[in-house]
Amino acid sequence: MTKKEKPTILVVNDDGIDAPGIKVLIDAMKDLGRVVVVAPDSPQSATGHAITIARPLRLDRVHIYPDVEMYKCSGTPVDCVKLAVNKVFHDQKPAICVSGINHGLNHSINVIYSGTMSAAVEGAIESIPSIGFSYDDFSYDADFSKCVPFVKAIARQVLEHGLPVGTLLNVNFPKAEKMKGIKICRQANAKWAEEFDERTDPHNRNYYWLTGVFQLNDKGEDTDVWALKNEYVSLVPIQFDLTAHHAIPVLNNWQFDVQEG
Amino acid sequence: MTKKEKPTILVVNDDGIDAPGIKVLIDAMKDLGRVVVVAPDSPQSATGHAITIARPLRLDRVHIYPDVEMYKCSGTPVDCVKLAVNKVFHDQKPAICVSGINHGLNHSINVIYSGTMSAAVEGAIESIPSIGFSYDDFSYDADFSKCVPFVKAIARQVLEHGLPVGTLLNVNFPKAEKMKGIKICRQANAKWAEEFDERTDPHNRNYYWLTGVFQLNDKGEDTDVWALKNEYVSLVPIQFDLTAHHAIPVLNNWQFDVQEG
Repeated sequence: MTKKEKPTILVVNDDGIDAPGIKVLIDAMKDLGRVVVVAPDSPQSATGHAITIARPLRLDRVHIYPDVEMYKCSGTPVDCVKLAVNKVFHDQKPAICVSGINHGLNHSINVIYSGTMSAAVEGAIESIPSIGFSYDDFSYDADFSKCVPFVKAIARQVLEHGLPVGTLLNVNFPKAEKMKGIKICRQANAKWAEEFDERTDPHNRNYYWLTGVFQLNDKGEDTDVWALKNEYVSLVPIQFDLTAHHAIPVLNNWQFDVQEG
Repeated sequence: MTKKEKPTILVVNDDGIDAPGIKVLIDAMKDLGRVVVVAPDSPQSATGHAITIARPLRLDRVHIYPDVEMYKCSGTPVDCVKLAVNKVFHDQKPAICVSGINHGLNHSINVIYSGTMSAAVEGAIESIPSIGFSYDDFSYDADFSKCVPFVKAIARQVLEHGLPVGTLLNVNFPKAEKMKGIKICRQANAKWAEEFDERTDPHNRNYYWLTGVFQLNDKGEDTDVWALKNEYVSLVPIQFDLTAHHAIPVLNNWQFDVQEG
């Protein structure tokens, strides 16, 4: 790439191509490069790293924001990244992949459920430096303006430095009068304690709505949850090698009694 | 638990409650404890860690194998685990959670896409010692009999020792005349190179089928892919803390130029 060539930036999300959060991200990225959007045609929150293998996918050019190359996809956020790489970029990778801005936080264990973060993970699997952005406001009318200077500053650093091999970034923004700055964090140890709301349908059959209570099991002051609570922007490097390397020596000492018939 | 009490074993999968692979796992676990099955009512391959939040879930008692307590669920494999914990066990956790036996391998990067493995990950998030099992045969008529002695031996060890905090096991079986034994491995560095099959529907609109070519980028002899190729059962400890801890010091040296308006 010559100095004058603008980097190509892939923008994805999980809230859908018409979500306000992706509009903010598109506008922020326009200052940094040539923007290409491939996003789901319907909300895909909490689809995790699901991909579509049992039915065909649609990918259609749309003109929602006329000055931007945009495609809507009938699949999951991860499908969007795969279709972008193969059918939009024809394996000429973009310089970076940014996902979001999600309506709602994706800190701690939420990374694993999040379509926003899974799209960024898929970007990283494709060796594209990738960042997921999420903001602590679920509402359609969320005001993302305070996130924008941070989004640009972080994306600029990734365009300049790339990212360590096999990693991506998870960035969360607190809902604060003034965000205090960026904290590099680890993912907090937390989980959702399930609570299913049990109801009866008009045909007298039971059904369940998933709800849950967030359980923080971590008093550390180096976590994303701590940073957000203290009005910092949290930045967690994420990896997709799921091997628990520290457990290998433990398991090597086990004796397996395999009784073959 | 007194010595005479049998441990309770939660069995889940992603191929659906009527898949032959889960029948094999149920039968193997009957020798080790009291089996409770909560499995999807339809195939859920490649649904990753998706959960169902935008529509209600069904959970119905079924009597497919009359001597076993079984429930079918309208959601994803992860939904099955959540419903099992909250609505079947009422937060009295089972001793272990086993997922599979999957029709098809889940080695290397496949863990992240796999419904089978995501169910086991959710079990681990719930602090239940969890194991995912997968076999190198996609067919409905796959012969799982050579897997069974290994399934039992590994489950027995986990019942006896538990697992290191925050980890679970990913076990894959090769299609071999004779499996050579168990190898403790790391996840191989690999990815799927996308290839979308582009077609035209009867209404003259394009659609795409996801296919892909497996790309192994790892010459190590300590990986799951190497073990399986050499006819060993691969056993990889997996974790759900996705923080790339090694990247934190790198990012701490970045200078972010946040230009607030």
